[in-house]
Amino acid sequence: MNSAATTLTLYELAAADPALRFSPHCWKTRMALAHKRLDALRLPWRFTETEALAFSGQSRVPVLVNGAETIADSWRIALYLDERFPDAPSLFGAADAIAPVRFINSWADGALSPAIGRIILRDIHDRLGDADRVYFRASREIRYGQSLEDVVADRPTHLSNLQRVLAPLRETLKHQPFLSGEAPAYADYCVFGMFMWARCVSLVELLEDRDVVFAWRDRLLDAFGGLARSAPRHQP
Amino acid sequence: MNSAATTLTLYELAAADPALRFSPHCWKTRMALAHKRLDALRLPWRFTETEALAFSGQSRVPVLVNGAETIADSWRIALYLDERFPDAPSLFGAADAIAPVRFINSWADGALSPAIGRIILRDIHDRLGDADRVYFRASREIRYGQSLEDVVADRPTHLSNLQRVLAPLRETLKHQPFLSGEAPAYADYCVFGMFMWARCVSLVELLEDRDVVFAWRDRLLDAFGGLARSAPRHQP
Repeated sequence: MNSAATTLTLYELAAADPALRFSPHCWKTRMALAHKRLDALRLPWRFTETEALAFSGQSRVPVLVNGAETIADSWRIALYLDERFPDAPSLFGAADAIAPVRFINSWADGALSPAIGRIILRDIHDRLGDADRVYFRASREIRYGQSLEDVVADRPTHLSNLQRVLAPLRETLKHQPFLSGEAPAYADYCVFGMFMWARCVSLVELLEDRDVVFAWRDRLLDAFGGLARSAPRHQP
Repeated sequence: MNSAATTLTLYELAAADPALRFSPHCWKTRMALAHKRLDALRLPWRFTETEALAFSGQSRVPVLVNGAETIADSWRIALYLDERFPDAPSLFGAADAIAPVRFINSWADGALSPAIGRIILRDIHDRLGDADRVYFRASREIRYGQSLEDVVADRPTHLSNLQRVLAPLRETLKHQPFLSGEAPAYADYCVFGMFMWARCVSLVELLEDRDVVFAWRDRLLDAFGGLARSAPRHQP
């Protein structure tokens, strides 16, 4: 099956500007679709548009619709894409790689995401429409136990903490160009999504340009004809 | 080639008690050898016994000697074992899994090891002989910029920080019994080595018994006929 024969729909989190698609998890799926050479109709969805996702039984994106099939959760979507489109390039390579890549995905969500979140949380808020701002502030201030402003107040400390969190990624990339080895695949996309999250909503630079992580991010920004580099982002 | 036909020698870091082999990196190799069904003559080595390793050009263990071949560094030893003994169970499975497992190994060394180190550093010191104590205190106090006693002073905070660092491992193990999938392999051993480090030198309990990480560690303690569980450890 090729992309021409497939009509996929992807629900993506959007900012007030519907072109600004900033969710790290939606970016994981976006890169996965490009890797599989699949096109999708990409529909904007906002935090407060619960009705629009009701058909899927989900309250969060990404949600992928392929004909009669609805798949939610970026990890499950990645597994689905490899299973459903086996002739396109694999997102995991051999089945033996799926289990360790799950750890990398969990690290991206459980270690990297909080470290970046503490830097960009207020920037995310500022990109949202009015209804989403109310939801976002309330839910995040409960999660962090602080005001958004207090969460991000000490940016130098949070940037320094991020460098510490990135140590295992940095060490790995000294030995291989991608987390997946010689070429990028899902192990890379699930981490890269976190950097796209920051890139889309914030002007802050998370990395120094002599960092191997910076060079790796650059290679992924250039992948698939510069798909990620050319994506709409917040402009000053 | 089977283990009966192979004479391997492994240099392992030892405490004052030569039976107490506590290095996390040596434990990675120890588990890897068991996985490959290989026996080795395990020689104790101390931090200050630089002469004894001079033949290898190394100043650190593990060092594995297989006839005319000398291999240092636990990661390189793991790759070597899979290449040299292809008929024994694989440590990585498919080649596609090596690259993501390298990240897990880097996470064990760069995130988990410092988090556990801040809990057990003084305990390590107390297990060493006199000459090694002098070396260990001096080198670690330079690395941390604090006295050993100050590094470990606030144990509750360090234990709490460890739980945070373990979040990606915990999340992964909710979905699969081992980092390597259904059965343990090197992705597990490189993380488990860090827990053996603590187990051998310290009486501190790092995990709560309802934690999925606790259950995973238990499964690895039981692997290979209880090899790790029955290993000599510090007794009160």
